[in-house]
Amino acid sequence: MKSRVFSGIQPTGEPHIGNYFGAMQNYVKLGEQYGKNSIYCVVDLHAPTNPGAYDPALLAQRTLDMAVANMAVGLDPEKVIFFVQSQVPEHTQLGWLFTVITPVGELERMTQYKDKAGALESVPAGLLMYPVLQAADILLYKADTVPVGEDQVQHIELTREIARKFNQAFGETFPEPKAVLEKNALRIPGVDGQGKMSKSKGESSVLGLFEAMDSIWAKLRPAPTDPARVRRTDPGDPEKCLIGDYHKLFSDDQTLQVVYDGCRTAGIGCVDCKKMLMEGVRRELTPIQERGERLRADPDLIRDVLAQGAREAQAIAAPVMEEVRQKVGFLKV
Amino acid sequence: MKSRVFSGIQPTGEPHIGNYFGAMQNYVKLGEQYGKNSIYCVVDLHAPTNPGAYDPALLAQRTLDMAVANMAVGLDPEKVIFFVQSQVPEHTQLGWLFTVITPVGELERMTQYKDKAGALESVPAGLLMYPVLQAADILLYKADTVPVGEDQVQHIELTREIARKFNQAFGETFPEPKAVLEKNALRIPGVDGQGKMSKSKGESSVLGLFEAMDSIWAKLRPAPTDPARVRRTDPGDPEKCLIGDYHKLFSDDQTLQVVYDGCRTAGIGCVDCKKMLMEGVRRELTPIQERGERLRADPDLIRDVLAQGAREAQAIAAPVMEEVRQKVGFLKV
Repeated sequence: MKSRVFSGIQPTGEPHIGNYFGAMQNYVKLGEQYGKNSIYCVVDLHAPTNPGAYDPALLAQRTLDMAVANMAVGLDPEKVIFFVQSQVPEHTQLGWLFTVITPVGELERMTQYKDKAGALESVPAGLLMYPVLQAADILLYKADTVPVGEDQVQHIELTREIARKFNQAFGETFPEPKAVLEKNALRIPGVDGQGKMSKSKGESSVLGLFEAMDSIWAKLRPAPTDPARVRRTDPGDPEKCLIGDYHKLFSDDQTLQVVYDGCRTAGIGCVDCKKMLMEGVRRELTPIQERGERLRADPDLIRDVLAQGAREAQAIAAPVMEEVRQKVGFLKV
Repeated sequence: MKSRVFSGIQPTGEPHIGNYFGAMQNYVKLGEQYGKNSIYCVVDLHAPTNPGAYDPALLAQRTLDMAVANMAVGLDPEKVIFFVQSQVPEHTQLGWLFTVITPVGELERMTQYKDKAGALESVPAGLLMYPVLQAADILLYKADTVPVGEDQVQHIELTREIARKFNQAFGETFPEPKAVLEKNALRIPGVDGQGKMSKSKGESSVLGLFEAMDSIWAKLRPAPTDPARVRRTDPGDPEKCLIGDYHKLFSDDQTLQVVYDGCRTAGIGCVDCKKMLMEGVRRELTPIQERGERLRADPDLIRDVLAQGAREAQAIAAPVMEEVRQKVGFLKV
């Protein structure tokens, strides 16, 4: 069987350039490679398990925003399968059946659970069950390839174990999917210079994919650079500078050469370097922002696209679930 | 709003007279009273959480058997709603959402969980989540009345709490259902004289609802009676005798008078008393067994009946789930 890619997209609202370079670009690339064998699912059923970030009044809009964002960067719903998790009821049915073969102890050992539960006075069961539903998300499509950030690798390991256990108990059914690490996601620094770009650190950390150019410039202009460059005439090391990192993402090879040489020889100053970066940012983001604006203007179209995606997803999920139902022994009525 | 009754029926295969007098007769009575506002659900999704009793090769047949049994004793699928849980996908969707508002700690405190988990080396998450899905089973139909055995009262308390929490978090949605205790279930002794009739104690404890008359007699004949009646001429106390208990279930008032007086005065012997009981057993069970035989001969009819029941159940469940989806904030596509 041809490989099948599954990726879950959190409906966190508008993404930043860390999400873009870390994950979204990769989805587009995988989509071009795998076509309808690449499945992208906005995982809204998972959203309420995150008490800090979940707001029922915003979830629908954030789901829509995330759909728009992925389409704006080039994910083509006609070529891939793109849908919203809560529209395909098989996810929770399979998730329930997986609870039966997943030991409580294994779930309690998940690092993400321990981190999140540790901070809470009362721990919702949904937080404990999160990786079980995640396993169902993936295995419902018999996906074998799952692009994820490093924090999800342990959950994919558990998914493999659930697949193994199900196959042992009920006969060969599921592949054991492998995690494919989204390497970029680990390396994109926040514009405040305080480690990885992350929304949880606040607006000053992130450059939004749909942020206005003057707002981006207002964050880039005062951004810290290599601390060795105290004066304009001091040479610097662009490898120790977040603006240097950003140039790798946004600038063409020629510009990269110019600014890296210019920094090392003190041939250009940091402000010039940032202005040259802004050119690349503008070139990369403007068409995305324009597409986003056009898409946002027609939410009914996005809904139609997602509804069609849900039908395509269900066309795969339903026979898998039928196979599972038969193996688990449910009466066919 | 008129009251609505929900009852979950475990697909444990053929029921015994303890189930019949304890629960099934009550379902028939409630069905006559509440009509299509009484919902009976064979809870096959719960079955795999019981590692000791679950066998994938038998589950479908047991589900069918349990449907046949309830129809044979008089549950009328044209008058009530009667269906199989796994046929209505909304159960697990709502169940998942309830995990988000149910603390792990509350689930760990459930007596049934502690009893069952305590005996296991590796505890499946399904055992911990069982009462969450049970709450969804009930609230999906906004049922307010739940006939249960005493061991389930704590779970209904949890259901009330889940309803309260959901209403608080998302606005008034669910009633707080009340448990109605099936009192008979507690009092029907096993034919071996070793406490309550229960399949888990083995065949020698139970009189099957569909057991052949000679097999029932073979169990009743040697059954223990009041130990005070050592000799035929010793008077006994029918209130201390399981045959006396069974007479209350199977015999008419006149016979009851005769055997109770006869026992107390040593006017009749235990074998005569048991023979008179057998008459009542035959009179009660023969028509049920004949109806069962006719129903079993046409499994396709039973399937059609259950499929129709699932459609009726879903006609109630779908709008409730739609209300929930809107309140939780899912995008409508």
